[in-house]
Amino acid sequence: LRSKLPDVGTTIFTVIGQLSAQHNAINLSQGAPNFSPDPQLIAGVTKAMQDNHNQYASMTGYRPLKTLIAEKVATLYGSRYDVDDEILITASASEGLYSAISGLVHPGDEVIYFEPSFDSYAPIVRLQGATPVALKLALPDFTVNWDEVCAAISPRTRMIIVNTPHNPSGQVFSAHDLEMLAALTRNTDIIILSDEVYEHIVFDGERHHGMATHPALAERSVIVSSFGKTFHVTGWRVGYCLAPAELMSEICKVHQFLMFSADTPMQHAFAEYMTNPDTYLSLAAFYQRKRDLMQSLLAESPFELLPSAGSFFLLAKFSHFSDESDSEMVKRLITQYGVATIPLSAFYTDGTDNKLIRLSFAKDEATLRAGAQALCQVK
Amino acid sequence: LRSKLPDVGTTIFTVIGQLSAQHNAINLSQGAPNFSPDPQLIAGVTKAMQDNHNQYASMTGYRPLKTLIAEKVATLYGSRYDVDDEILITASASEGLYSAISGLVHPGDEVIYFEPSFDSYAPIVRLQGATPVALKLALPDFTVNWDEVCAAISPRTRMIIVNTPHNPSGQVFSAHDLEMLAALTRNTDIIILSDEVYEHIVFDGERHHGMATHPALAERSVIVSSFGKTFHVTGWRVGYCLAPAELMSEICKVHQFLMFSADTPMQHAFAEYMTNPDTYLSLAAFYQRKRDLMQSLLAESPFELLPSAGSFFLLAKFSHFSDESDSEMVKRLITQYGVATIPLSAFYTDGTDNKLIRLSFAKDEATLRAGAQALCQVK
Ligand SMILES: CSCCC(=O)C(=O)O
Ligand SMILES: CSCCC(=O)C(=O)O
Repeated sequence: LRSKLPDVGTTIFTVIGQLSAQHNAINLSQGAPNFSPDPQLIAGVTKAMQDNHNQYASMTGYRPLKTLIAEKVATLYGSRYDVDDEILITASASEGLYSAISGLVHPGDEVIYFEPSFDSYAPIVRLQGATPVALKLALPDFTVNWDEVCAAISPRTRMIIVNTPHNPSGQVFSAHDLEMLAALTRNTDIIILSDEVYEHIVFDGERHHGMATHPALAERSVIVSSFGKTFHVTGWRVGYCLAPAELMSEICKVHQFLMFSADTPMQHAFAEYMTNPDTYLSLAAFYQRKRDLMQSLLAESPFELLPSAGSFFLLAKFSHFSDESDSEMVKRLITQYGVATIPLSAFYTDGTDNKLIRLSFAKDEATLRAGAQALCQVK
Repeated sequence: LRSKLPDVGTTIFTVIGQLSAQHNAINLSQGAPNFSPDPQLIAGVTKAMQDNHNQYASMTGYRPLKTLIAEKVATLYGSRYDVDDEILITASASEGLYSAISGLVHPGDEVIYFEPSFDSYAPIVRLQGATPVALKLALPDFTVNWDEVCAAISPRTRMIIVNTPHNPSGQVFSAHDLEMLAALTRNTDIIILSDEVYEHIVFDGERHHGMATHPALAERSVIVSSFGKTFHVTGWRVGYCLAPAELMSEICKVHQFLMFSADTPMQHAFAEYMTNPDTYLSLAAFYQRKRDLMQSLLAESPFELLPSAGSFFLLAKFSHFSDESDSEMVKRLITQYGVATIPLSAFYTDGTDNKLIRLSFAKDEATLRAGAQALCQVK
């Protein structure tokens, strides 16, 4: 059987999740909370089901939810999106990324993206018969080298995929990054696909520099976001896409046949819940407390933490006390110390090993304390 | 902007849905119930959410649910599927169809399917850079002409898509159809993709002739089914795929990046609910009563009904009293008589007009009575 993705194996999240479960480890690996969402949100789903909102939603999404998103984006970021033609509710941010790439990238196109990266971008591009062009973010601060991007752009470049706040590094775009991206794409027809699922998790009073904050970029961007990451329900599978109408129309053609519509009761619940902006505006402070706790607990550990400016991830360095590979370290942490993390090499297609591991701090305090305690024992 | 699907417009379900809403029509168009699911199923979702099953499910699905599916399929159809490697929970049957086609069909391949057909098959095939080959089902009983299939098979044929019970005609495969399909594909590497979302809605005491009832076909088939159609919750977006491990591994590679996992609380609720097989075994009788009611109510109408052996659809003929096109008839029914149906031409890529309209009887009794009454007025 000829495979369209011959080198894809089991995702790292499944591999580590299983190993972690086998060893009953404290799980700081997958980017998913281990705590409950707001009971009010759960009650909203129950009410929607009882009110008989259980059949297909409209293809592009429940209109009141789309209206709230348009208002949020206009208020926070300044860009206006038409509720009918420029906002799509997707069945997860993953589906949004897929529909956007599948709808807009043609066979033979090139798509630039940055590594380390979330593991779906490159395979989705390859499934279109297009070529992913990976550029490496510069360590230790995981910044984009814009000169390298300039050199990588070719007549075949159809799309540049960016991600801020960044999984796995926790780094964020600056206003300068947006200026550089705008300058490089001006007078081209390159589309920006911007993964902004951690848009509400930016620390230290900084603002989120997403594409919707920059009119020239917004015009050529597809922005993907997630309700799961924002409202602590990664298993509810609802996200959204923003794009100018011309791009959105192509994305919808894929979404329509791939998914038709996203979960109806969950959309109703989010629409009720989001009428209070505190539900998402409080998220940065909520996760900043967790980041700060983790940083202070790990101060006594042998690991050296890299700064995290956003997302719910932290990278930890170990090369000063061990010359293991990051995969060996991760395996040893699970089997010997009972704590699960992700090796950064899993986020590089060529397996680059920077001797860094990724910790998720989207966990309740007891788990963070137990995980940190285990990490403090490491020798 | 170059489109990958230049001729795709707004789906007929959205077009008719909007027109129907504008005219406050009785809606017999989209294949979705207008009644509530079992309160016990709703309670199951609430319980799962309260028990904190709100984060990513495992990539291939919640294992207890997969186990119940394996048991159901073995009991009803006789084929055994490995719970770990041959069953995938998808975020809707639509996603299952998409992941199967995208994972298995390569650019340049040909895919045979039958029209009239559900509207997603051909566009999904085209998105892979492959060629959909449409064969027409023979009217008035919408049977497959197997000689035509034989003639259409070429060295590039990668897949044949079948659908039983059939949307939109309500016809079902016979044991003879399975034999013919098995004979035609024997000693080839053609894959069968079988859309069996109406598997539990087969009337008049007949059994469902799905691919899992025929070992030689099961070996080369991907079977797609739906929880939404079976449990009256089309908006909950959960379905499943069955396939031999070798095929499933390729489907999972797409599913993993497209969706990662399906809705967690819904999967838990279905797993609890399906422990009682009556929940799905009662479905045929439930819908047969609706079919019979509709047939008797429409006996006085000018329409001539075609027989329906499965699914929740009926076709109605009007050529003996009107020479309108089916689209004109549908429009007139909505605007003049306040009842919405779907023109059969929407299920043909070339718009073939057989002067037939499709009625969905997945509606409560009051709606069926009101709809039938309106249709009885037609002149
Ligand atoms: C859908 S995969 C898991 C979540 C995630 O984003 C991560 O851990 O990187
Ligand atoms: C996802 S589209 C609507 C449902 C359906 O199957 C139909 O009406 O044919």
